[in-house]
Amino acid sequence: MLLAPRLAVFLPVWLFLSEVGAKVPRVAHPGSKQAKYLASKRPQTTTAQVSGSFTGSGWSASAPEVSAPYANVWQELSNDEAADVIAFLHNQTDLNLTAAADAGSWDNSIMRVEILTPNKTDVLPFVDNDQREPPRWARAAVWVGATIEPYVIEYQIGPLPISSDSVLTSLDWLTTKGTTYQRNYDADEDLTSEFMYNVSSSVQDIVTDLLNGTASGSDDDDLDIWGIDPLWHPTPDTTVQWVTFWRIPSSIFDGETLMPQGLYFEVNTTGRDPSGWSVIGWLYRDVYYNSTESFRAAWEAGELEKSTLNLEGPWIGSDYRGPTTKVGENSTMWASEKAPPVMVPPSGEDGIRYKVDVDNKYVEWMDFSFYVAFRRDSGVRLFDIRYRGERIVYELGLDEALAHYAGNDPVQSGTAYLDTYYGFGPYAFELLAGYDCPTYATFLNSTFHADEVSTTHPNSICLFENDQGYLIQRHSDDAYVASTKNIAFTVRSASTVGNYDYNFDYTFYLDGTIEIVVRASGYIQSAHYYGNDDYGYHIHSGLSGSMHDHVLTFKADIDILGTSNSFANHTVAPVTTSYPWSHGMERSTMKLFRSYLDNEDNAKLFWPGNAHSMFMVVNKDAPNEFGEPRGYRIMPSKGSGMHATIQNSSNLLNSMNFATHALYVTKQKDTEPRASNANNDYDTANPVVDFAAFFDGESLDQEDLVVWFNLGMHHVPHTGDLPNTVFTTAQGSMLILPHNYLLHDPSRDSRQTVRLDYNDSGVQAVHTFGADFSNGLVNLSSVVPDFWAYRGDIDVRKFPYDPQHPYNDTESIV
Amino acid sequence: MLLAPRLAVFLPVWLFLSEVGAKVPRVAHPGSKQAKYLASKRPQTTTAQVSGSFTGSGWSASAPEVSAPYANVWQELSNDEAADVIAFLHNQTDLNLTAAADAGSWDNSIMRVEILTPNKTDVLPFVDNDQREPPRWARAAVWVGATIEPYVIEYQIGPLPISSDSVLTSLDWLTTKGTTYQRNYDADEDLTSEFMYNVSSSVQDIVTDLLNGTASGSDDDDLDIWGIDPLWHPTPDTTVQWVTFWRIPSSIFDGETLMPQGLYFEVNTTGRDPSGWSVIGWLYRDVYYNSTESFRAAWEAGELEKSTLNLEGPWIGSDYRGPTTKVGENSTMWASEKAPPVMVPPSGEDGIRYKVDVDNKYVEWMDFSFYVAFRRDSGVRLFDIRYRGERIVYELGLDEALAHYAGNDPVQSGTAYLDTYYGFGPYAFELLAGYDCPTYATFLNSTFHADEVSTTHPNSICLFENDQGYLIQRHSDDAYVASTKNIAFTVRSASTVGNYDYNFDYTFYLDGTIEIVVRASGYIQSAHYYGNDDYGYHIHSGLSGSMHDHVLTFKADIDILGTSNSFANHTVAPVTTSYPWSHGMERSTMKLFRSYLDNEDNAKLFWPGNAHSMFMVVNKDAPNEFGEPRGYRIMPSKGSGMHATIQNSSNLLNSMNFATHALYVTKQKDTEPRASNANNDYDTANPVVDFAAFFDGESLDQEDLVVWFNLGMHHVPHTGDLPNTVFTTAQGSMLILPHNYLLHDPSRDSRQTVRLDYNDSGVQAVHTFGADFSNGLVNLSSVVPDFWAYRGDIDVRKFPYDPQHPYNDTESIV
Repeated sequence: MLLAPRLAVFLPVWLFLSEVGAKVPRVAHPGSKQAKYLASKRPQTTTAQVSGSFTGSGWSASAPEVSAPYANVWQELSNDEAADVIAFLHNQTDLNLTAAADAGSWDNSIMRVEILTPNKTDVLPFVDNDQREPPRWARAAVWVGATIEPYVIEYQIGPLPISSDSVLTSLDWLTTKGTTYQRNYDADEDLTSEFMYNVSSSVQDIVTDLLNGTASGSDDDDLDIWGIDPLWHPTPDTTVQWVTFWRIPSSIFDGETLMPQGLYFEVNTTGRDPSGWSVIGWLYRDVYYNSTESFRAAWEAGELEKSTLNLEGPWIGSDYRGPTTKVGENSTMWASEKAPPVMVPPSGEDGIRYKVDVDNKYVEWMDFSFYVAFRRDSGVRLFDIRYRGERIVYELGLDEALAHYAGNDPVQSGTAYLDTYYGFGPYAFELLAGYDCPTYATFLNSTFHADEVSTTHPNSICLFENDQGYLIQRHSDDAYVASTKNIAFTVRSASTVGNYDYNFDYTFYLDGTIEIVVRASGYIQSAHYYGNDDYGYHIHSGLSGSMHDHVLTFKADIDILGTSNSFANHTVAPVTTSYPWSHGMERSTMKLFRSYLDNEDNAKLFWPGNAHSMFMVVNKDAPNEFGEPRGYRIMPSKGSGMHATIQNSSNLLNSMNFATHALYVTKQKDTEPRASNANNDYDTANPVVDFAAFFDGESLDQEDLVVWFNLGMHHVPHTGDLPNTVFTTAQGSMLILPHNYLLHDPSRDSRQTVRLDYNDSGVQAVHTFGADFSNGLVNLSSVVPDFWAYRGDIDVRKFPYDPQHPYNDTESIV
Repeated sequence: MLLAPRLAVFLPVWLFLSEVGAKVPRVAHPGSKQAKYLASKRPQTTTAQVSGSFTGSGWSASAPEVSAPYANVWQELSNDEAADVIAFLHNQTDLNLTAAADAGSWDNSIMRVEILTPNKTDVLPFVDNDQREPPRWARAAVWVGATIEPYVIEYQIGPLPISSDSVLTSLDWLTTKGTTYQRNYDADEDLTSEFMYNVSSSVQDIVTDLLNGTASGSDDDDLDIWGIDPLWHPTPDTTVQWVTFWRIPSSIFDGETLMPQGLYFEVNTTGRDPSGWSVIGWLYRDVYYNSTESFRAAWEAGELEKSTLNLEGPWIGSDYRGPTTKVGENSTMWASEKAPPVMVPPSGEDGIRYKVDVDNKYVEWMDFSFYVAFRRDSGVRLFDIRYRGERIVYELGLDEALAHYAGNDPVQSGTAYLDTYYGFGPYAFELLAGYDCPTYATFLNSTFHADEVSTTHPNSICLFENDQGYLIQRHSDDAYVASTKNIAFTVRSASTVGNYDYNFDYTFYLDGTIEIVVRASGYIQSAHYYGNDDYGYHIHSGLSGSMHDHVLTFKADIDILGTSNSFANHTVAPVTTSYPWSHGMERSTMKLFRSYLDNEDNAKLFWPGNAHSMFMVVNKDAPNEFGEPRGYRIMPSKGSGMHATIQNSSNLLNSMNFATHALYVTKQKDTEPRASNANNDYDTANPVVDFAAFFDGESLDQEDLVVWFNLGMHHVPHTGDLPNTVFTTAQGSMLILPHNYLLHDPSRDSRQTVRLDYNDSGVQAVHTFGADFSNGLVNLSSVVPDFWAYRGDIDVRKFPYDPQHPYNDTESIV
């Protein structure tokens, strides 16, 4: 999907365009081999009727129903709402819109429409005090191409449903820059791509000699061309980019990012007139050539030693391989073909222990309840997470995902993805039941609206209970054994943003804890090894596992017994001190030191060494009966909460201020709903939302607080990342856990506990507290995945609105 | 079990003694109410025949058998071996031994016998080069009580089986002190206990007034007395201890450590003559009284304000409670009685995917194999962990567990448990199938030999596969979805050392990773709240959740392609630099810096802030074909690898040098097999093994390396720790993971992977690579726990040896 209106002409062509070119579609060519390969797999009609039933709200009949206490005010626009908004926009003649399907890069068109998340200060009176429901508003991103300085701009439209009262107004109030206006310095991607292929063709003899392939824009190309993201602007009006050659897989495997070829060129693509564009220089084996002519001269002089090429082979495939490799050939994997243990729901649908309001995406499990929402930029978000009837978290979700690379070559050095530019929503594909989630999970759909098409990912959010494989509580002595099962509830989605697959879990535990987990799998983006010794490992013939930092920034708007909260730091530290009883001797011991963050200026935090500080959101005015303020703590679990290595990135400039620390605390403001903006990528020196601007000295003493925390990893891929990174070692998680919140461990209130009393004569009594032990039969065919039920995305054209003819059409960033 | 020979007279009495007194049995009284309660549950005969079959080697018929490639040379002594060693010791007239069952504190007796772990340098020639099997030797700890300066000493006995060649020799070579001789400054625990009860009785009117109970040694006492561990030695020959009063639960619940009463006294118990013992002072509400008389005078003057008492109530019970508490009363826990999802083995015993040699405790799962051993001090240990036929870890196991408390009162301030003093082996009780481990797990027994009794914990080690609940690999695009199940194999045990339950997991993953997990549940040891504001939270009426550090030190003897290894540090760090292509501009970016630890003097390490360094054991001389040294990385996963807050503990002095840093690297030496010693607790200024002595400047360059790493938590218990700490938030884990070790991700060699090819017409092909999908029926009764099969420990008397009359008798530290 991407920002597809930047692509030209008509639907089938931009589909191809957005298919190719790794995470940088702007330099892909519609005629590339990969595009043709993909096109060959696509049915020729784009209006094929979707077979089977499609309700737009999921296949969740199995979970018991519950009525949400109030409507999901955060829910994405319905198909009808989106169509209404798009029609309304087309009626605004000032916008001079062309239908997306007909729009070229010199037209104005609608990039996307979405719900405008209502202000917290409007929602709370509705939810907590029975005030009127906040009116729904939409937001729209519009591409303005009919100008020499093309730009993107965002509007708000409402109230919905569209009526004579509905208006189109500015969204500038949501930015720190003061305007949503965002100049696009790379508006003509089709022409840029053509230009690059022309450059390549001009040295096709050299490319063929060095890389054993062609990148000319013709059908039988072996090589693709793309490079840095974001583009560089050495001066405010200049656009410069380094690109390189990548080998296009001939197999189905999506391994282009494993085959960089080690030849680079830099182009100046400033402005919209290709006649002014130029080649700045070439780089090969660490030697810079300041013109195509000097590069050619070196080649002709025989000065260019050939690098090892990264060629396709079984090594890029993720299929079962078997123990055939040279190293580690003693693999046996005895019995790996046998079905492994599998989790089953003991009582089938009758035994489901949670309730769902599918229409409102509202869920109740044990003592938790929450609403699920979905956004084009960030995917799944949760709202109004309550525990035992009290709100704990108002909003929880991803805000931005940075992947910052480094390298001796300009393409790796210049790459620093801000993934919400691409969006996690468009790539939150259907989950594979039995693999991504248990077969017995409840699956929900998700929808986004881009380029005047509404796309629904069926079964893209799953909800399930499972046993965590270890107890939550145990104690045994010589008289009894007490044990409580650790059953948890998970909301899961997965987004494949180009090469990487991100798995997102929100897991709820019986002790009142919420865990946020992100895991990474899929293909790494690699580098040609030449000269890159200091930037990664040599992992295949000519390949470097290009080092990079993943920093995923989450927003946790924590509310403890209302919105007047403080942020406490309780630190364990060594002290030397004497006591009334120590006979005058100093003792080397430790103490607990308690303090609060006073204001935002001090609220950029690191996790302390040796984990000796506890951070928590508490309500000072709501102490428990023993005088301790009730609160929820935030604590890294899997991996370490981390931040970016690079603090002043030459690529990201002012657009990575959310990644400089491990966590941040700010006062909640309706005007600061998100730490980043999808359009920041266009001009990183002048981001639409600069997170640093949130820190303006406001008090954090009994205010409405938001915690922004980072998960991620410093990823230096090694051979074990081939062909794909594994989730097991590439994961991070954060716990939001009760801290002096209740008066006892609430898992005591679950009946999934047992006590055996025993002595030397054996077990004397068994206490099971009313728990059922199902002992019927489970047919394992009920948990065998139905692979053939997997579908592509389901699309509905919006302008003209054609809801009766949905069609399957899935798009990824290849 | 403990060091029971320190207890006197005859078997039934010392059983009672070791039953009471939290983690400090030395101050418990045999006549206490708790002891009587427990005694009432014990059958009167100690020679009751164990019902059912008992093989001494487990109930593991279900796992397919395999023959270990060589005998488990690390395996604990068999019952027969232990009996032989004990008989041999009794034949050494120089030792002047009294049978343990008859021995008093002024006799000499055998504390414990155990296998002497063979030297690595003796084992490797046998295992790797078909040299002769190293002879088995035993070690024995002997209590020498028949002296005014009683001590403990250890010997080695061998070779086994006992023959005319067998000898008794010194074990001094295993110490850093140069001798295993360890003076015991608290040899007469029965008399110490009597003395303390006499002190309490001398102020019984005050105790009754202030604490509403009695601690007199009589049958109907409400209160128990015990205190610091280890004892203090203000001068080398002086023994001083602070003790306090604890309320004895009248219910079955083991919650004495939740009921401290806030009154403290200090006694001098130097030497073996109680007539020289004295009360040093009293402490109540932070006021110190330097004699019993001055304390009494203050009470008589009405100067003693009464503190809130910690009294028994349902709050100490771990049973199902239901939503009845005041705070959080909106709990519903809807459907918590319904059976939750449960993992099942799809094909029953026919489907088991691992093999076990039960006699040798040898296991093969997928591409891993290893031997399981068990030790009195540390519980489960793994040896010769191989992956694809190559040794990765020679030895992996717990070495010591520190729990260091702090407080305003002398008992919390003075408490710093070294838990191997008590031992993890004696308290590794039977695991509850269906709760601690899946019902389909393979269960092994474990045995230790103390006080001339061999005790077997049936089913105390479990082995099982399970699905980790998320994939190990996935990638999807618009043409295919590829997914691999994350099936892992776990070895689990749990030890309840007094109040705390430690769960230990060793988990093996398909990508070649090993994870070591420790979790804590059970009862906290708490403090009376008065004056303890700076040392913990106020969590119940008069209760402080006494702050403490858990530091669990593990030994990982990692071998990568032989024993010539180096320890690498690969650090990701920001740099500013220019490039041939950067037009003279400096760029803010990052690099990977590679270095090695040169020698032990630099080998005490912390995990760096922001996790920016990777630590790994590599073999420099075994690079892969791309020139990268093959290795295994060590990386914290759950929680943070941490170390103790206190660096120069007034309690532990020279006995916590393993806890000052996050991890350590040393050269492997046969004389340095363990970072600590169970007898260090007797005299912490002069430990038998001082870990600091391991660091003597030896080279770490291509040497045999051992990594010692710490897991744990800074635990400041809050209300959610009542009644028990929960595993979910009290856990830490470490990953030992391949790093440039193979040439690809080895999970590709598992058949539990699938690829779906699809397009807009639906799924076009399903690739399942020979994996079975069982679709028969599973009878859930097969996974319903059989609670009534739980047993106590099984004991066999050793001197005289009586193998035909095992009896059930489980002992815990209450």
